[in-house]
Amino acid sequence: MDNGPTDATPTTAAFRLVLLSKSNPVMGCYMFWTSLLVLKMLVMSLLTARQRMKTKTFANPEDLRISRSPEVRFGDPGVERVRRAHRNDLENILPFLLMSLVYVASGPNPLTARLLIRIGASARLLHTLVYALIPVPQPARALAFFTTFAITCFEAGYVLFCCIKYI
Amino acid sequence: MDNGPTDATPTTAAFRLVLLSKSNPVMGCYMFWTSLLVLKMLVMSLLTARQRMKTKTFANPEDLRISRSPEVRFGDPGVERVRRAHRNDLENILPFLLMSLVYVASGPNPLTARLLIRIGASARLLHTLVYALIPVPQPARALAFFTTFAITCFEAGYVLFCCIKYI
Amino acid sequence: MDNGPTDATPTTAAFRLVLLSKSNPVMGCYMFWTSLLVLKMLVMSLLTARQRMKTKTFANPEDLRISRSPEVRFGDPGVERVRRAHRNDLENILPFLLMSLVYVASGPNPLTARLLIRIGASARLLHTLVYALIPVPQPARALAFFTTFAITCFEAGYVLFCCIKYI
Repeated sequence: MDNGPTDATPTTAAFRLVLLSKSNPVMGCYMFWTSLLVLKMLVMSLLTARQRMKTKTFANPEDLRISRSPEVRFGDPGVERVRRAHRNDLENILPFLLMSLVYVASGPNPLTARLLIRIGASARLLHTLVYALIPVPQPARALAFFTTFAITCFEAGYVLFCCIKYI
Repeated sequence: MDNGPTDATPTTAAFRLVLLSKSNPVMGCYMFWTSLLVLKMLVMSLLTARQRMKTKTFANPEDLRISRSPEVRFGDPGVERVRRAHRNDLENILPFLLMSLVYVASGPNPLTARLLIRIGASARLLHTLVYALIPVPQPARALAFFTTFAITCFEAGYVLFCCIKYI
Repeated sequence: MDNGPTDATPTTAAFRLVLLSKSNPVMGCYMFWTSLLVLKMLVMSLLTARQRMKTKTFANPEDLRISRSPEVRFGDPGVERVRRAHRNDLENILPFLLMSLVYVASGPNPLTARLLIRIGASARLLHTLVYALIPVPQPARALAFFTTFAITCFEAGYVLFCCIKYI
């Protein structure tokens, strides 16, 4: 399970340079926060299911028997709010995670990289809190949204600059 | 095309440890099933297009000429079912693939990892079958859904535990 | 920041084989175009926001104060067009990027791989242009769509063939 060699042969030196491996602390940090964000995204499905149960809003005829609902329904505000939050996750968390992976592979400053990953991921956790769980007045949601948005942009800009010669 | 060295120099030994490379059988397994799931997701677009053609339900004015439809339409049940299945894929397959990549990078037990990848991917193929192609009574869809859901959760838990020191 | 060794020790030789690193020009090319596509996807959120502002179509009660709109609204054609384009990105760009990463890891012919990545990514930029920015008659959008679609399929087929033994 451990892929980080500890002796000091030339092999080791080169191996340290494999950026997308657990021996790179930045990659370890990325792996930790990716797992947390993936878990958070999965929870959105459960939140949607809970809202559907509570309001008996089912979109498929084959789901009606579970809740003894008479017919399919759409557009319940509670269900739609969770679904909008979930879609916002797809639009922002997935690009953030993919972008961060590529950013880690570009060999950024370790301190900066770990800070960006931690802040970007935490902001998305906060975004779900203020959007789907406890709706609070703006600009709470906008601030959480633009934090991750700006970090993803910065990472993209950094990699574009790094890899411009491979265009 | 082959990046797996076969001699036994120290270099080779270290190289075997590069987890995100084709020389790692777990990564090979991940790559195979990722390709299959990506193809499956692309097929959803074709299924949507087929339903749109069949029911003449087009959402964009510029698409009307193809099918000689008089106006844009929304909300056809057949089209919406395929679209819900497609959205469910986005919500579950993409996190599963991203999570599995990170899981492979964390150096899990090869047998366990390959098993989880195979079962998780197969369950999603089954999910599409019982949701978009041949709607069958519950709990067929729920079982397929929660299989991949549980596997993604397990992988996330494993990586969180592995990488807790990099938080 | 540079992880590409230039001396000719055995270590270096093995290291050249690490496909998912910046020392591999194909990976560099992938990283460049991934950043560009991620930026493009983020811009879709801004385009949606602009359309929402312009038409005062807000889906959440807490957003109404910003634009002094009297109530939540749904289904504005301008907003929905950008949202469809954005969803189409989720359905196609994310699988394309994930598939291309796995394709790069499978060690394809460098010239072919770089060409496919460039064309596939450019086609998606064009797709957004003709869908969300300047709606033009078909088959402009269909051509852009199927270019990336076909490239993703080819990459998936290549990897399936490469990794069939790890099934």
